[in-house]
Amino acid sequence: MSGFVVEPWRLRWETIDVDQLHRTESAFALANGHLGMRGSLDEGEPVGLPGTYLNGFYEEHSLPYAEAGYGYPEAGQTVVNVTDGKIMRLLVEDEPLDMRYGKAHTHHRTLDFRTGVLTRETEWESPTGRRVLVKTRRLVSFTQRAVAAIRYEVTPLEDTTQLVVQSDLLANEPIVSESRDPRVALALKSPLAGEFHWSEGYRAVLVHRTKESGLRMAAAMDHEIDANDGLRTEISCEDDLARLTIAADIAAGETLSVTKYLAYGWSAQRSAPALRAQAEAALAGARQTGWEGLLAEQEAFLDDFWEAADVEIDGDPALQQALRLALFHIAQAGARGESRAIPGKGLTGPGYDGHAFWDTETFVLPVLTYTMPDAARDALRWRHSTLEAARDRAEVLGKSGAAFPWRSINGAECSAYWPAGTAAFHVSADIADATARYLAATGDEDFDREYATELLVETARLWASLGHHDPHDGFRIDGVTGPDEYTAVVDNNVYTNLMAQKNLREALAACERNPGVAEALGVTDAEKSVWADAAERMHVPYDELLGVHPQAEAFTQHEEWDFENTPEDGYPLLLNYPYFELYRKQVVKQADLVLALHLRGDAFTPEEKARDFAYYEARTVRDSSLSAGTQAVMAAECGHLDLAYDYLAEAALTDLDDLHGNVKNGLHMASLAGAWQAVVAGLGGMRDHGGELTFAPRLPRGLSRVSFRMSFRGTRLRVEVTHDNATYHLVSGDPITTTHHGEPVEIGPSPVTLGIPPAPDNPTPQQPHGREPRRGARRAGESS
Amino acid sequence: MSGFVVEPWRLRWETIDVDQLHRTESAFALANGHLGMRGSLDEGEPVGLPGTYLNGFYEEHSLPYAEAGYGYPEAGQTVVNVTDGKIMRLLVEDEPLDMRYGKAHTHHRTLDFRTGVLTRETEWESPTGRRVLVKTRRLVSFTQRAVAAIRYEVTPLEDTTQLVVQSDLLANEPIVSESRDPRVALALKSPLAGEFHWSEGYRAVLVHRTKESGLRMAAAMDHEIDANDGLRTEISCEDDLARLTIAADIAAGETLSVTKYLAYGWSAQRSAPALRAQAEAALAGARQTGWEGLLAEQEAFLDDFWEAADVEIDGDPALQQALRLALFHIAQAGARGESRAIPGKGLTGPGYDGHAFWDTETFVLPVLTYTMPDAARDALRWRHSTLEAARDRAEVLGKSGAAFPWRSINGAECSAYWPAGTAAFHVSADIADATARYLAATGDEDFDREYATELLVETARLWASLGHHDPHDGFRIDGVTGPDEYTAVVDNNVYTNLMAQKNLREALAACERNPGVAEALGVTDAEKSVWADAAERMHVPYDELLGVHPQAEAFTQHEEWDFENTPEDGYPLLLNYPYFELYRKQVVKQADLVLALHLRGDAFTPEEKARDFAYYEARTVRDSSLSAGTQAVMAAECGHLDLAYDYLAEAALTDLDDLHGNVKNGLHMASLAGAWQAVVAGLGGMRDHGGELTFAPRLPRGLSRVSFRMSFRGTRLRVEVTHDNATYHLVSGDPITTTHHGEPVEIGPSPVTLGIPPAPDNPTPQQPHGREPRRGARRAGESS
Repeated sequence: MSGFVVEPWRLRWETIDVDQLHRTESAFALANGHLGMRGSLDEGEPVGLPGTYLNGFYEEHSLPYAEAGYGYPEAGQTVVNVTDGKIMRLLVEDEPLDMRYGKAHTHHRTLDFRTGVLTRETEWESPTGRRVLVKTRRLVSFTQRAVAAIRYEVTPLEDTTQLVVQSDLLANEPIVSESRDPRVALALKSPLAGEFHWSEGYRAVLVHRTKESGLRMAAAMDHEIDANDGLRTEISCEDDLARLTIAADIAAGETLSVTKYLAYGWSAQRSAPALRAQAEAALAGARQTGWEGLLAEQEAFLDDFWEAADVEIDGDPALQQALRLALFHIAQAGARGESRAIPGKGLTGPGYDGHAFWDTETFVLPVLTYTMPDAARDALRWRHSTLEAARDRAEVLGKSGAAFPWRSINGAECSAYWPAGTAAFHVSADIADATARYLAATGDEDFDREYATELLVETARLWASLGHHDPHDGFRIDGVTGPDEYTAVVDNNVYTNLMAQKNLREALAACERNPGVAEALGVTDAEKSVWADAAERMHVPYDELLGVHPQAEAFTQHEEWDFENTPEDGYPLLLNYPYFELYRKQVVKQADLVLALHLRGDAFTPEEKARDFAYYEARTVRDSSLSAGTQAVMAAECGHLDLAYDYLAEAALTDLDDLHGNVKNGLHMASLAGAWQAVVAGLGGMRDHGGELTFAPRLPRGLSRVSFRMSFRGTRLRVEVTHDNATYHLVSGDPITTTHHGEPVEIGPSPVTLGIPPAPDNPTPQQPHGREPRRGARRAGESS
Repeated sequence: MSGFVVEPWRLRWETIDVDQLHRTESAFALANGHLGMRGSLDEGEPVGLPGTYLNGFYEEHSLPYAEAGYGYPEAGQTVVNVTDGKIMRLLVEDEPLDMRYGKAHTHHRTLDFRTGVLTRETEWESPTGRRVLVKTRRLVSFTQRAVAAIRYEVTPLEDTTQLVVQSDLLANEPIVSESRDPRVALALKSPLAGEFHWSEGYRAVLVHRTKESGLRMAAAMDHEIDANDGLRTEISCEDDLARLTIAADIAAGETLSVTKYLAYGWSAQRSAPALRAQAEAALAGARQTGWEGLLAEQEAFLDDFWEAADVEIDGDPALQQALRLALFHIAQAGARGESRAIPGKGLTGPGYDGHAFWDTETFVLPVLTYTMPDAARDALRWRHSTLEAARDRAEVLGKSGAAFPWRSINGAECSAYWPAGTAAFHVSADIADATARYLAATGDEDFDREYATELLVETARLWASLGHHDPHDGFRIDGVTGPDEYTAVVDNNVYTNLMAQKNLREALAACERNPGVAEALGVTDAEKSVWADAAERMHVPYDELLGVHPQAEAFTQHEEWDFENTPEDGYPLLLNYPYFELYRKQVVKQADLVLALHLRGDAFTPEEKARDFAYYEARTVRDSSLSAGTQAVMAAECGHLDLAYDYLAEAALTDLDDLHGNVKNGLHMASLAGAWQAVVAGLGGMRDHGGELTFAPRLPRGLSRVSFRMSFRGTRLRVEVTHDNATYHLVSGDPITTTHHGEPVEIGPSPVTLGIPPAPDNPTPQQPHGREPRRGARRAGESS
């Protein structure tokens, strides 16, 4: 049981549970893709892990190698906890409000998915018996990307009480580093050097610069105070702290109300005065809109989002809540990224050092493409903005075109272990795949000309130079790492080869669409015929003896993992077994061949899919949060609908239940996105091979109705699925044509209802010993 | 041209060449396997790289990882430059003798392979015009392993001259570290902490302890002085310095003679007083033997060695010298190791951090086995003494038996990059191979019972647990790295599989010979049948299309390296290309499949050998010094005798010509040993498959006669080869039976002369563009 109260449109936590703060802070994080704030208590302490993030703002540190190698990245990047503007401390007649002391008669925090506001309500009795009601609301604006705002209200409940509120901008908050590397810990101990501070009236600005990466940021605050006349305020500032102190005697039942407006900005280039001006201008905009105005804008933004994106689940309230939370956080991660990356944890925590991975393109962008396409476009524009770094990287590696980094904040490779980093070249095909998907789903011709064609061409060039034609068996791509991180540096990884094949074909198509762009990029007929030939002759290994595809060459000849004798605390395996042992055995961390079955389903027969799925199902341990969603999709396609449901639930609840034990460091965006995939591509059977939208919906026994929304080429539609039928609704826009279980359907003004054929009847696959779906194993006895 | 004067029994350098000191110091290094001293000038400066080493004495430092992994070694070990006792400084009337100042009228250093003494003779004129003749002799005793001695003689040539000699023990000499890792550099900056110092009369002792590894060492010195009456001496000591100062006025033509005796000891357990006592006792022994006695013992030891080991070459004086130097240094590396490792650089420099690798067992021990078998036995006893660490390592890796480290000083794995370290499991089979070879060559039953059987059993257990039976193709060993470091973590490396097969069979044979030992080790019939079955069904991949063995699974399907477009300064490739690119292409750093053709020649037909050799010859770049010797062996067997000669010369001259540009850090023991292999196994065609000694000698056109000696089961023999005949001489011991080109021969008191059949006629193989043998490319124009 997650501890959260189950409601369809809100996430709510009703107790204090100091030892669970790290979890709730991540789940209650607010962000807009540019600015993120963990859901910490207003008073700053107790805290699980403090965190305020500006997308793209990082500190640099050297990467140490006991044995160095040519082309190893020398500098690492780590997201910085920037100036914390959300702190509002309260003194109640000399007693600081601290949830560890005194008594909380009531205390709850609520994140509302429709208003986009995090509410906190605490009725607190101080150790000396003073009772106050504290109500706070916090938002990070979707409409004004530099802005956050807090309404902080305190009401004495019994006597006139002296209240002192301290509203801070605090830089270089102490953080307990968990890094094993002393250099990283040092780099992050106090990363910000003060450059400028100023305060006057209710307003203050701090400007800082990172010590190594040399990035500059400004944080500014302004306030509105609503209280009686006896108010006394004082503002002060120094390098790492600006503080507005508000003191007042408030009568019982009266309320001291403070509205705090926050604005942030950062730049690698702009001066301290320019950044200060930028933050103050954003602040002026926020004050002009006002608190009520910001609330209204926030809700309007989300109304539109839910119209495009909502998922309804009948029969499983906890799953309903989890799916809306997932969509809400994906929107928060991508909405206003505007040519910055979408990190693996969004802006909800410092996990993965704040790096972006292939997670974004393969898992998050499909969701955004079909629900908030402009955000998908912006994320791809970030990749495009890093093309120069990717070309440089390809050159260092002796390759042509662009080799995108395995992990990065600014576009430069930060992966210090190349077999599970640089070798995972598939990230470049994943970017091409996301680019092609966005183009097909939107028909965005400007993007095609200005960004997409170049992305597709440069990644196609990478594949042409990575592979080679061999007399034995066609076009091979050797020595690379596929999605499964328990196997590395292998030949002809099926996922990689098929995604590269698609990449090459998409590049050819893009050059046909945009011959001028192709010419400007120097694409010749000879080069195009190289691509066509490589795609045509792409080698896909197959094990005739077992009748399945090996995930990569020879995989099915490797020793089986001894699951029976692997103890439960032996997972995740990578913390308890050496890489060499994982790599050489048939144990799969996360969907790899099965992901190919989904994304390149057009390259497999239904019989192959059924056999392959069953084979890998028995060898996949899901030590990665990226896996369950994809397994749900393919389980559904292969007719294992109850299993699909179990994996859907696992993906959706990964963070709420903290299945990986690391939600403290932020939410797993790809897992949240995987939950959406499990619904839409899994239960909905949505596919987009070749840019064509098709459906093949089916429900598991445990759910009575599922409805999901998406947009395609400007049309918003809703698909409603029951056990017997699916109904296709046009929400807005022009009618579109699709298919339902292979039958053509025109979705127009009148809903179309179609019957659902019986599921394919394949034998139930088995998971490795002890690795059944997490929700499945407990579903029967679970109440929430 | 190497710069050394070519003489058959001496290595001589006749100029000062300060910029060449790093080279000459390595070549002139003296050692006995326990104590090593680089050939630095007596006065300490100028110096290439100071170095005094005690085998097994190291400092520890943490190994940093930007991304850590389970089972990664946490501590590194690095050989320590211990207290320097060879320093003798000279003041000539106020002017310090320094070869960078004044004028050297003559200056030469000579290492004599028969006396084992390094001589230096310098006629020096001080900047103010005083002329002196300095003659020094230095030895590190083969017979008294803790002892070194120096005879230092100064003769004023024109006037009575005041001479001051300072004889030092100096700890923590400043060294310029070349490590990229600041932690390693720091650990080695001043590794020794003074624990005790004492001096009296002409004698002094310093005791130190390493700061991290906690090893303790003592260095002691004593002196005899032969001079006129006006002598004044003073002895002093402090933590890091003990100094005897000798001042005297010496008449022209008279000689001040100082004999310095040095003794060293170290221990991980013994106390400072105990170590002091140990060093002083060794000193007492040395003084009792006296300088002349030490000289006599040294020469007697070497007389015996050369009787057993000498190689004669007619037609190539530089090669003759290089081969004797090689044998001399191998004797120095192994003679008195006594259960310590033989490091990759011997005790000639700090290269490879002082670690021992598989080089020892595969390259150095065959030489010692057939020339100084007790030293081979002692080196294998070192491996046996580390069995516990190897068992622990196997357990960490989830394997049975013993997994010996890739690189180590004390037996614990120090390799920080597992694909080229831990994954190179073949080191354990190499140890088994060396063990079996020693047993067959000596019939040492005590060693068999007490050490060998356990080594063979525990390594066999490793292979049984590393491999698995697969329905596709028998017993596979997946995910390991073979000898070629430009390919890593592969399946069914042919070398590894065949050496493992031999390992399993040798273990079975050992258990048959020593059933009691086998029982004590818990070997059951079931286990033996597992070994037998694995050996029987060991998979050896073969490429039917190309008709060659792939070095490992799929190797021959990989892309070819573009040698034509690889510039000369692109070598060594690992410094200029990323691992990922090297690993995925057909480029070979060093003999791998070709080493299998040599060591497991019994597993290949002559036709296979010829085709395989040609195939790999075209893809092997020899970026490793381990390669040329093996290529010489197989070139000879395949009938390419001129090529064998070229590779023999390359192996022999690797260090004299500084082919790898790193001789500063010490001599490459394996390359020196490879030169011996090139003569004996190459031109001599010596093989020892199944413990049977056989010969198949043939000469290249450029040599008129080659003679080599070796011992087998207590018999010393000499094989003399001309173009037409080979003559087998019994040097001492019982007659033995062998074969000559397949014909049985009994070598008894009368020499047997047999004709040499024509060489097989295979097409001349090609090397990669620009990677022809180094000597071959220049042979025509070379004078030395």
